[in-house]
Amino acid sequence: MENPSSDRPRDSLTFPDSKSQHLSPYIPLSTGLSNHPPSSAKPFVTLTFATSLDSNLSIAPGVQTALSGPESKAMTHFLRSKHDAILVGVGTAIADNPSLNCRIEGVGGYGGEGLEGQPIPVIVDPKGRWEFTEETKCMKLAKQGKGKGPLLVTSNGSTSKKLQLLSSLSGGLIDIDSTKDSKERADWGQILSALALKGVRSIMIEGGGSVINELLSPKYFHLIDSVIITVAPTWLGKGGVQVCPDVRTEAGVRVPVGRLKDVKWVPLGEDVVLCGRPKI
Amino acid sequence: MENPSSDRPRDSLTFPDSKSQHLSPYIPLSTGLSNHPPSSAKPFVTLTFATSLDSNLSIAPGVQTALSGPESKAMTHFLRSKHDAILVGVGTAIADNPSLNCRIEGVGGYGGEGLEGQPIPVIVDPKGRWEFTEETKCMKLAKQGKGKGPLLVTSNGSTSKKLQLLSSLSGGLIDIDSTKDSKERADWGQILSALALKGVRSIMIEGGGSVINELLSPKYFHLIDSVIITVAPTWLGKGGVQVCPDVRTEAGVRVPVGRLKDVKWVPLGEDVVLCGRPKI
Repeated sequence: MENPSSDRPRDSLTFPDSKSQHLSPYIPLSTGLSNHPPSSAKPFVTLTFATSLDSNLSIAPGVQTALSGPESKAMTHFLRSKHDAILVGVGTAIADNPSLNCRIEGVGGYGGEGLEGQPIPVIVDPKGRWEFTEETKCMKLAKQGKGKGPLLVTSNGSTSKKLQLLSSLSGGLIDIDSTKDSKERADWGQILSALALKGVRSIMIEGGGSVINELLSPKYFHLIDSVIITVAPTWLGKGGVQVCPDVRTEAGVRVPVGRLKDVKWVPLGEDVVLCGRPKI
Repeated sequence: MENPSSDRPRDSLTFPDSKSQHLSPYIPLSTGLSNHPPSSAKPFVTLTFATSLDSNLSIAPGVQTALSGPESKAMTHFLRSKHDAILVGVGTAIADNPSLNCRIEGVGGYGGEGLEGQPIPVIVDPKGRWEFTEETKCMKLAKQGKGKGPLLVTSNGSTSKKLQLLSSLSGGLIDIDSTKDSKERADWGQILSALALKGVRSIMIEGGGSVINELLSPKYFHLIDSVIITVAPTWLGKGGVQVCPDVRTEAGVRVPVGRLKDVKWVPLGEDVVLCGRPKI
């Protein structure tokens, strides 16, 4: 991937090799995905997010909170370049209007060819709540050739207008069975299988709070392959959106907590990055 | 301090210099306390505790939870040896029956002379709830010459039996004004001033949840000089005792969150130790 500095877009990011080498054992290999069987029924799943010391993602629901430093932002974009897809829940899509692309220097749209290195944005929206248009940030970026067209995971069908927009950006729809659960919960095994069938070999799950807490709960913890968490040296206090999984089963039984193995702590600016794998 | 290995008690702990050197900028100097004015109106305050990734101290109220590894335990005892006193709230005293002494190799009772290096245990019990006897662990250890006699901070007086026991162990009572607050809250400025008057130049505050959350709240954050937190790579989940300060003032106004400066992250076994100072 040639990237003469004269072509380097001003909004691109770089992440130093000295840091990325610590992460490599925890991310799917970009070439061939040799640490994950390509025929697998689910993609390699990396769960990643940034919290305060009191495990808050943000100061209040719907309020984006600058938690971690610029190095952490660059790391997120580096990690995005190493995955086929990135995933957020509908709450995050609505609240943050996120870019959901990769701005690391050298990927497609940021000095590189075509859409090389750009992950597919996946938005999980079981009830079809997300009202996006071509002005929605990730749609705009896809149109500009700075990101891929999104995949919408829903059990509620979609309007023809939405479908048309997604198709025009080479995105699409994944229909999952509607659950009988009125709590708007999706079955993560089903979602990941459907993504594997679409050719997604690796996915980075980024948030928000509901998605992270579901995946960390005993029901889904085994679906995670790798965890990369940034912790910032601050407290956000009560009333924030918190990562704190429900450790009881549906029958109300308290089950063992989730623990990581193969742990590595990497200081990054004022923050620390924790890498690990679920201890099943 | 001579400490021939033949004299080394089997229950003593060691903490390697390679790790302790990272901590030294964050602890009061044991000789002379030169980084803290001796005439200060309050002791040098180190706040220290261990949490899970979801900021839980334990899995449920009153349930001691083994969170951090053996290195972290040794660190706690090393830190205790560097402070004049260690402090816990009455909830912890009742729930855990803690030893509240220092078992680092070479301190008094663990290979050293007399009670050299042993901190004074301080228990904050505004309403006089703690029913201790000579069988209570920290009293027993004091009697055996393996720890100092405790100081009880209360606004409720004490029974003569309790007073007699404390006196017999060279411990004592600190009377603070009873607050009008029915929530059993103590005024931390007042407690720390009273301890300074007793000659306590440095204190390590260890828990439990209520004490930590009070000190991290905007009202008291400025009283902390140093923070040393261990984070274990595990989630305990909902229903635990959580460090998450109340960031609203009594008038209900949301105030800025607590942040640390001079941050250092030190990996320690599977855990990480965060050292920092409150950014006021």
